[in-house]
Amino acid sequence: MIEHEELFLKSALAGDSVVSPTEEIMPWFWSRRDAHEFVIEQIPFSAMDRWGVEPITGNLMHESGSFFSIEGLQVKTNYGIRSEWQQPVINQPEIGFLGILAKQFDGVLHFLMQVKMEPGNINMVQLSPTLQATRSNYTGIHKGRAPSYLEYFFDLKKHRVLVDSFQSEQGGRFFRKRNRNIIIEVEEDVPVLPDFKWMTLGQVQHLLSIDNIVNMDTRTVIGCIPFGGATDGYGFPADSFRRQLMDSALSKGEAFHSYAEIRSWFTSQKFRFDLDVSLIPLNEVSEWEKGDFEIYHQRQDYFSIIACRIEAGSREVVSWTQPLVKAPEPGLVAMVTRRINGVLHCLVQAKVEPGIFDVLEMAPTVQCTTGRYRIVPKGHEVPFLDYVLNVSADQIKYDALLSEEGGRFYQEANRNVVIDAGDDFPLEVPENYIWMTLRQLKEFVKYHNHLNVECRCLLSCLAFLDPQEVAE
Amino acid sequence: MIEHEELFLKSALAGDSVVSPTEEIMPWFWSRRDAHEFVIEQIPFSAMDRWGVEPITGNLMHESGSFFSIEGLQVKTNYGIRSEWQQPVINQPEIGFLGILAKQFDGVLHFLMQVKMEPGNINMVQLSPTLQATRSNYTGIHKGRAPSYLEYFFDLKKHRVLVDSFQSEQGGRFFRKRNRNIIIEVEEDVPVLPDFKWMTLGQVQHLLSIDNIVNMDTRTVIGCIPFGGATDGYGFPADSFRRQLMDSALSKGEAFHSYAEIRSWFTSQKFRFDLDVSLIPLNEVSEWEKGDFEIYHQRQDYFSIIACRIEAGSREVVSWTQPLVKAPEPGLVAMVTRRINGVLHCLVQAKVEPGIFDVLEMAPTVQCTTGRYRIVPKGHEVPFLDYVLNVSADQIKYDALLSEEGGRFYQEANRNVVIDAGDDFPLEVPENYIWMTLRQLKEFVKYHNHLNVECRCLLSCLAFLDPQEVAE
Repeated sequence: MIEHEELFLKSALAGDSVVSPTEEIMPWFWSRRDAHEFVIEQIPFSAMDRWGVEPITGNLMHESGSFFSIEGLQVKTNYGIRSEWQQPVINQPEIGFLGILAKQFDGVLHFLMQVKMEPGNINMVQLSPTLQATRSNYTGIHKGRAPSYLEYFFDLKKHRVLVDSFQSEQGGRFFRKRNRNIIIEVEEDVPVLPDFKWMTLGQVQHLLSIDNIVNMDTRTVIGCIPFGGATDGYGFPADSFRRQLMDSALSKGEAFHSYAEIRSWFTSQKFRFDLDVSLIPLNEVSEWEKGDFEIYHQRQDYFSIIACRIEAGSREVVSWTQPLVKAPEPGLVAMVTRRINGVLHCLVQAKVEPGIFDVLEMAPTVQCTTGRYRIVPKGHEVPFLDYVLNVSADQIKYDALLSEEGGRFYQEANRNVVIDAGDDFPLEVPENYIWMTLRQLKEFVKYHNHLNVECRCLLSCLAFLDPQEVAE
Repeated sequence: MIEHEELFLKSALAGDSVVSPTEEIMPWFWSRRDAHEFVIEQIPFSAMDRWGVEPITGNLMHESGSFFSIEGLQVKTNYGIRSEWQQPVINQPEIGFLGILAKQFDGVLHFLMQVKMEPGNINMVQLSPTLQATRSNYTGIHKGRAPSYLEYFFDLKKHRVLVDSFQSEQGGRFFRKRNRNIIIEVEEDVPVLPDFKWMTLGQVQHLLSIDNIVNMDTRTVIGCIPFGGATDGYGFPADSFRRQLMDSALSKGEAFHSYAEIRSWFTSQKFRFDLDVSLIPLNEVSEWEKGDFEIYHQRQDYFSIIACRIEAGSREVVSWTQPLVKAPEPGLVAMVTRRINGVLHCLVQAKVEPGIFDVLEMAPTVQCTTGRYRIVPKGHEVPFLDYVLNVSADQIKYDALLSEEGGRFYQEANRNVVIDAGDDFPLEVPENYIWMTLRQLKEFVKYHNHLNVECRCLLSCLAFLDPQEVAE
C-alpha cells in the first residue's frame, strides 16, 4: 500500500516534468482557452429551453426529468443558530464520476489534466480532471457522445486504482450529492488530446497558488491523495512550514489524538446533533421569492438561482440553457494549524450541513461560504473567524481565491486560507473541534463521506513545494 | 492504539477469571432467569394497549408517536431477483445505544455483562451488554427511570473509549436503524448489581458456543473488537484452525488484497447497484394481508407481524403490549474461509438490503435470514448456498443457533456457521464477493456502516479458545 503513497509524494515534490515543462503550462492553458469560443448571458426563466417550472411544485426541472432540478428543502436541526428553515437545493441523485488518469514518466507519476469549459467558470476554462462523467455516461444509458477517456475507467482490474471513494459536494447547496473520486494508474501509452496535458502533482499544486485556475473537481480528487514513504526532509529546513507540513503528512512524530479517539469524537458528534431534512416543493419554501430572472432570499444575502443561455464551440456551435447558482460575494474557508509536541496539526470541526449525506462531516476550522459571516448576530459569532480575519500576514501560509464547480455555480469563488497559528494558540477547543495531523485527515478521507468538500479542497492546496521556486 | 488491541487479545485468550470463575457463570445465568417472572401471550391487534392502527395509513404505532412503528416500504433495485417490491418495515429513527463497561482485573480486561429479559427472547433472558438505551434515555428527554450504568457513558473523556461507531441492524427488517456500539474502559470500582457479572472475552465467547444464550446486542458490540499485539501463537498448533484465525486477526502474513483494493471494490459495488426506497403507508403494501392476529405475506413464507402482551417482574408486576416480528423458520448465516498464501481469509459479499443506510454493506458469504432460501427459483440460486449446506462435518468450525434482538423479534434464531473450505476452494469469486483477512474486516468495522449486523455477529463467534477447553 505504501508503494503508491511514495509515488504520490515524489510527484508532489516534482516542480518540473520531462513531458510537460513548467514554463509551457500556463501559455498552453491560455491558448486552449482561446481555441474555444463561448458566450454566456443571463435570461429570464421563461426563456429557458427544455427547462421549466413544474406547475404544482414550482420546482425548476429539465423536461427529460434527468440532469438536476432545483427543489425546496425543509431543515430541522439542533446545530447552530437556527433550529428550522427552508431553502432551495440542487437535487442531483445521480452519482458523478471524477476520474484522473495517472502514468509514470521517468518514474514520476503524472496526471492527465484537462482544460475544460464550464458555463459558470471564472476564466471560462479551468484545469479539470481527465474525466467528469455521470453514472449514465458510464453505464451508457444516455446514447450521446461519450466523454473522452471514459473507456479507461470501465474495467478497473486492468489498472492500478490509487484513490477510489464516494465524496460529498457542498452540503449547503446540494441534496446528498456524491461523486466517485478516482485516480487510476495506467501503463500503456495514452493518446493526448489537445485540451489535455500530463502534469506532476507539484505542477498542479503550483497552479493552485494562482486564483481560479484549478477547478473544484480537480481539487477534491487531489485532496484525497495520501502521501507515504520515509524521508529525511528532502533538504527543506526543519523549521520551515512546508517541511512541517510534509512531516505531518508522513506521520513523523506523535499525533495529539489516536485514531480511536478521533473516531469516537466523530461518532459522539453524530450522536449529539440531529439533522432532519426533507425535500419540499420549491414554491412552499418560505422567505424566498421567485422573480422573472432570479429565485432569491428576501434579505438578498444568501445565494440565488438564475437562468443562463450558453453558446460554445468554435466551428460547430452548441447552445443550451440551464439554471446556475449565484453567490452574492466570496466566502471564506480557513484551516488553522499549529505544532503540538513539534508536529503540525490542523484544527478540524464536525460541521452539520443540510445536504450532507450523514448529518455531518469533518470541515476546515472556519467555513463561511455565503458571505453572511459578516452579519452574524452578537453572541453567535463563528468560532475562530475573528482570529482568522485579523491574523498577521506572515502567519498566512496559503491564500487564494478558488472557484466552485462551474457546471452549477456562476462565477463563484471562495477565499481559501491556511494559517500557521503558532505554538501559543490554545490547545483547548470547543467540543465539535479537534486537532488532527495531515496524515490522519488523509486516512479518514479514504472512507466515504468523512471530509467535506471544503476540507478536501483545502488539503489539495497544501503543497510541499514553494510556488516561488517552481515558478523560477 | 495497539495497546488496547493487545488487551482485547489477552481477554479473548482468558478462559477463566479471577472475579468470575467460569463454572459459576451458567448457574448464575439460570438463577437470574428464575429470579424474574415473565408471561408473554399473543393477542389480537385490537387488544393492544396504547398501540393502534393509524386510520389513514394503516401503520401500527404507539399513541405517543415514540418507540417504533410498523410501516410500509417501497423498494426498487437492480440487485437480486426482484427489481421492485413492497414490504412492512420497522421504523425506529432514534439511534440506539449499546454500551459495554470494561475494566481490568489482574491485568485482564473484563466486560460487565447483563442477564436481561426481552419479550421475544428464547430462554426468556439472554446475556446482554451493560447498557441498552435509546438516545432519549441518554439525553433525558423521557423522564422515566434511567437504565443502570447509564451515567458512566455521559462524559466519555473520563474513561478510555475502546470501540465507538454507528452500526446497522437487520437491513431486511429495519428502515435505516443504527446503534451506537461502544466499549469504554473504567478504572474506578463499579458496583455490580445482581443481574450483572464481569466476564473475560474468552468467557463470553465460550457462551457463544451454546445456542441462544448471548443476545444480538452483545454480539454486534463484541464483533467490533479489534485484536493486536505480537504473538508466537500462544502454543496453539500451527495447523489448527484457531491458530490460523488468530494469525489472520493479528495480520500475520500477507493479505490477498490491499486495503486500497478492498476500498475500491466496495466503492465499485456501491456505484454498480441502485437502491431506491421510500416509506409508504402499511395499508398500501401489496401482497401482504392484515388479519386480526397477524400481518403476513400471502405466501406465508416471509416474516409476519404479531401483537403480544407481556407481564414481567417478581414483586411489582409490569405489563405492556407491543408488536413483534415473527420469522417462519430459522435462517442461515455462513462464512466460508480458506487459506490464501497460508493466511486465513473470509469470503465476504457486498449485500444490498432495503433498510441499509447506504445501499450495501459487507456481509457473510451466505446470508439467508428468511428461510426462503429453500425455495429459490431455478437459475437464481444463492451463491455458495449449496456448498454450505453440503459441506462435510469436519469442515464446520462453528455452528450454533443465535437469536435476533428479543425486543423486536419473537423467538427468532438463525443458524450461524463458519466453514474451513480448504485450499481447493476456488479463489475466483463473483464480482460482488471478495476475500479478506480477519484483520481487514476488523479495520473496516471501525468505520460506520461497513459490516452488516449478520457479519459483525458472526465475527463475534470466532473464538481463539477451544470451547471444550474452557468448559473443562
